[in-house]
Amino acid sequence: MSSSTLQTFPNPRPERDYEIQIQCPEFTSVCPMTGLPDFGEIRITYVPGASCVELKSLKYYMVEFRNTGIFYEQVTNQILDDLVALLQPRRMTVVGDFSVRGGIKTIVKAEYSAGATV
Amino acid sequence: MSSSTLQTFPNPRPERDYEIQIQCPEFTSVCPMTGLPDFGEIRITYVPGASCVELKSLKYYMVEFRNTGIFYEQVTNQILDDLVALLQPRRMTVVGDFSVRGGIKTIVKAEYSAGATV
Amino acid sequence: MSSSTLQTFPNPRPERDYEIQIQCPEFTSVCPMTGLPDFGEIRITYVPGASCVELKSLKYYMVEFRNTGIFYEQVTNQILDDLVALLQPRRMTVVGDFSVRGGIKTIVKAEYSAGATV
Amino acid sequence: MSSSTLQTFPNPRPERDYEIQIQCPEFTSVCPMTGLPDFGEIRITYVPGASCVELKSLKYYMVEFRNTGIFYEQVTNQILDDLVALLQPRRMTVVGDFSVRGGIKTIVKAEYSAGATV
Amino acid sequence: MSSSTLQTFPNPRPERDYEIQIQCPEFTSVCPMTGLPDFGEIRITYVPGASCVELKSLKYYMVEFRNTGIFYEQVTNQILDDLVALLQPRRMTVVGDFSVRGGIKTIVKAEYSAGATV
Amino acid sequence: MSSSTLQTFPNPRPERDYEIQIQCPEFTSVCPMTGLPDFGEIRITYVPGASCVELKSLKYYMVEFRNTGIFYEQVTNQILDDLVALLQPRRMTVVGDFSVRGGIKTIVKAEYSAGATV
Amino acid sequence: MSSSTLQTFPNPRPERDYEIQIQCPEFTSVCPMTGLPDFGEIRITYVPGASCVELKSLKYYMVEFRNTGIFYEQVTNQILDDLVALLQPRRMTVVGDFSVRGGIKTIVKAEYSAGATV
Amino acid sequence: MSSSTLQTFPNPRPERDYEIQIQCPEFTSVCPMTGLPDFGEIRITYVPGASCVELKSLKYYMVEFRNTGIFYEQVTNQILDDLVALLQPRRMTVVGDFSVRGGIKTIVKAEYSAGATV
Amino acid sequence: MSSSTLQTFPNPRPERDYEIQIQCPEFTSVCPMTGLPDFGEIRITYVPGASCVELKSLKYYMVEFRNTGIFYEQVTNQILDDLVALLQPRRMTVVGDFSVRGGIKTIVKAEYSAGATV
Amino acid sequence: MSSSTLQTFPNPRPERDYEIQIQCPEFTSVCPMTGLPDFGEIRITYVPGASCVELKSLKYYMVEFRNTGIFYEQVTNQILDDLVALLQPRRMTVVGDFSVRGGIKTIVKAEYSAGATV
Repeated sequence: MSSSTLQTFPNPRPERDYEIQIQCPEFTSVCPMTGLPDFGEIRITYVPGASCVELKSLKYYMVEFRNTGIFYEQVTNQILDDLVALLQPRRMTVVGDFSVRGGIKTIVKAEYSAGATV
Repeated sequence: MSSSTLQTFPNPRPERDYEIQIQCPEFTSVCPMTGLPDFGEIRITYVPGASCVELKSLKYYMVEFRNTGIFYEQVTNQILDDLVALLQPRRMTVVGDFSVRGGIKTIVKAEYSAGATV
Repeated sequence: MSSSTLQTFPNPRPERDYEIQIQCPEFTSVCPMTGLPDFGEIRITYVPGASCVELKSLKYYMVEFRNTGIFYEQVTNQILDDLVALLQPRRMTVVGDFSVRGGIKTIVKAEYSAGATV
Repeated sequence: MSSSTLQTFPNPRPERDYEIQIQCPEFTSVCPMTGLPDFGEIRITYVPGASCVELKSLKYYMVEFRNTGIFYEQVTNQILDDLVALLQPRRMTVVGDFSVRGGIKTIVKAEYSAGATV
Repeated sequence: MSSSTLQTFPNPRPERDYEIQIQCPEFTSVCPMTGLPDFGEIRITYVPGASCVELKSLKYYMVEFRNTGIFYEQVTNQILDDLVALLQPRRMTVVGDFSVRGGIKTIVKAEYSAGATV
Repeated sequence: MSSSTLQTFPNPRPERDYEIQIQCPEFTSVCPMTGLPDFGEIRITYVPGASCVELKSLKYYMVEFRNTGIFYEQVTNQILDDLVALLQPRRMTVVGDFSVRGGIKTIVKAEYSAGATV
Repeated sequence: MSSSTLQTFPNPRPERDYEIQIQCPEFTSVCPMTGLPDFGEIRITYVPGASCVELKSLKYYMVEFRNTGIFYEQVTNQILDDLVALLQPRRMTVVGDFSVRGGIKTIVKAEYSAGATV
Repeated sequence: MSSSTLQTFPNPRPERDYEIQIQCPEFTSVCPMTGLPDFGEIRITYVPGASCVELKSLKYYMVEFRNTGIFYEQVTNQILDDLVALLQPRRMTVVGDFSVRGGIKTIVKAEYSAGATV
Repeated sequence: MSSSTLQTFPNPRPERDYEIQIQCPEFTSVCPMTGLPDFGEIRITYVPGASCVELKSLKYYMVEFRNTGIFYEQVTNQILDDLVALLQPRRMTVVGDFSVRGGIKTIVKAEYSAGATV
Repeated sequence: MSSSTLQTFPNPRPERDYEIQIQCPEFTSVCPMTGLPDFGEIRITYVPGASCVELKSLKYYMVEFRNTGIFYEQVTNQILDDLVALLQPRRMTVVGDFSVRGGIKTIVKAEYSAGATV
């Protein structure tokens, strides 16, 4: 995925801390071990700073993972990193909620806070 | 929308902090980019001060968005601004829970507290 | 409604703070504007002091609202006031969860705490 | 509504009787009595003949009802009439499932069969 | 109840057999044995003949049962009788789905068909 | 159980075939093998003849099974036999839907029809 | 599995055709290809002839599949064959509803009727 | 009920604070006013000290309430008292979630903490 | 897609008509108009003849649609055609249940019967 | 079970505290008292340190309990101990959610925190 696909628009109400939650239930990537497709839902929650993510560009960004081999833990952290770099939000959480594989289901949750050191 | 559509009635129990939650599942506006209709549910929760919002006038206020082109983030913040200006509540939360577009769902949540500076 | 309908019985375990939750899904009153019936569920949660409310008398108390014209905000606060006066509970919450009217649904929540000043 | 908005594409498998079900949960029109908006879901099920309805044009056709004053029974029958005239399907059912008004919910179901006389 | 409360409007599409389903979840009457309120949902499904029942008048008709003492079996059959006399539908079903009393729930279903002898 | 506990009232509309469904979710009896309690829901559906079963007496009849040792298959058939003997209905179905025992759930359904020979 | 594990008891009401439905949600066997465990729910519905299956023995019969390598289609048909041989029911259906494997879920349904030739 | 029915086994991991939640959905007792059965679910959550409650003995303890006349508030507090005396847990919550009576549902929740004075 | 990916195994019980239902909730293809991904669930129900479809090969067959541009109506009919050609089943139904696009959801159902002429 | 079955891979983002939740709904072991199978779902939530658990090895680890006699409280604590020893996570919770036995359901929850002393 190239984070340059992502586009922003100015936060229409930057003086207020408010929350935007985005659900992408149609996420798919490829397992780097087996080459078989993985499916999941990506959920993004953030308090915008100066800018918000434009939804159509977010959709194209998600589609770029379609034929990419990547693990669940990496996908979730990379989406967080890309969006934090793009938006410099006040805080952000990304959840990757993936389908059952081998009778086991995995959910990964990563968070960013502007005031924290990681 | 004209916030002058909204009407109030006196809070019948102003000496107690209590909470009123209002759900408007039949909200619709127009996407300013495509001109196509958007659909959603607006949820308002507030602790009234001297006055409460009259429900029939709230319904007419919501209907005024029907043919207005406006983004999700703006709708939610404007409804909060209009109701805070009208009611001067002790605190208020407005949630805009919008339908899926392009396989992506968006929920916006904005809050106001009488004691806070924003 | 006459709060004299309500009856009590001694709290069987007054030395312990424990919680009683009562749900009355069959509440109905009359809209004072239109004269048409309103429907809802009243939920009462309290930590009893010296006495508990007797359920059969609570049912008759609820039935007294059946042909009374009263607004949602008033119903919820009056039930809280009547039960606090009757029981002197350590704390109590009353929730009125009312049916959709004009495409809008309303939930009112009022609380009492023995240690607080309102 | 103008049925000329609707467009078709050739049935890719006309030699087989198969069923297409389309759900439009974002339908809205206007009550001709009160001028207030109505909301509902339109469900169309049909066995195509020579042609199928193109979905984007169906969406625009639905949007044309947005500011039209029309009763529930009429909406459902008119959609059936317009689609039957357009597609000449082997059979078709249209269901209009409308929101609660005055505490009452209405569902209208109309059917067409190529072999039947109505 | 007086069936004279009910009003009709002409069936907009009398040449087609189509179905109208009406749900009234806010029905209440009084138990003739105990004088206590009963609650339930009335569901009406019919194929209209020359006329349809007007919904606002149906609501007022339902409200007339509010303080009437009547058994579940009688309510359901009387509503069917009143509506059949009013509308002369091609066929009609009335279901009365009543709340739990004494740990027992009751549903009554009565049907009418224009061609049948009862 | 003594079927003499059961009482009837005259069918208010004997000239029409209509259906009464009764759900008793609070049924309990005793397993004749282990002496431990069994739990279940009894569902009765019937078209009344000259008389209907009175609900309060049906409740007392159900309570008589509380300390009786009886198998699932027998309970269901006995309730059907007792009610058919009492009511002489046009047709009747009794379903016994019992709780999980040893990881296995059992549902028994028995039917009677006035015209059939069993 | 040995069908000799299964035991019967006499049908308490052989002169009536009635239905017994048994759900076993805790079924597990082993995939003969991979050696890994499979999980599922077995649902049995039958009209008993002279005898019924005893539930505790049915549980032990199901447990015998626990370490047996067998395919979904075979399990379902074998359970039907074993129970038909044991009980000679008037009719019987066995459904095997198995967990997702490789993103694919399988349900197998096999039926027996005493009057039919298979 | 005799709390002597209850048996314990040694906590297999006493050096760790961990939580055990037990749900008994098949609870029944008798209303001391009417003599009619009450039904409910008892939920127990505790952090064990030196010992855990043995589940089969807990089942027999629950069965002892079957023909005992006792109020909801008393049942819940007595079960908490009996289990605290037996187990001396680090903390424990007992919830009694009882069926609808007269259209009203009741839930009672009582808590114990080893460090607290009640 | 190449139907040569699909493999079969002999029906273990060919003398009995029984039903196999297979659900593939992780189907994705590409819209030939927009190039954007489509998502859906494919459900296959069939009565096998001499052979059954091997599930792992079915999964690989489904994956071949991942980067193929194809319409909903074509996908569903092609899967039916490929599986009928492969298995010569006694009867088969394929349902394609696709995600919402532009606020509209589509379900396509195609059937084959060995005795019928299409 | 041998914890040597478990394998790890390096945490791809060790400088961030993020959470991994794993659900294993297909857990089964054997009751040491009766020898009969137990069923349940194991849920693991952890913040990884230097390494993450590899899912395929976790599956094999879970399968090792299949024919092991072990109590609910022991299973849950042992899985926590084995995974903490393997992964040295920053914190971890293991929940064992087991099927109903004798009408009673049990859920065990054990937690570990790197900074705490147990």
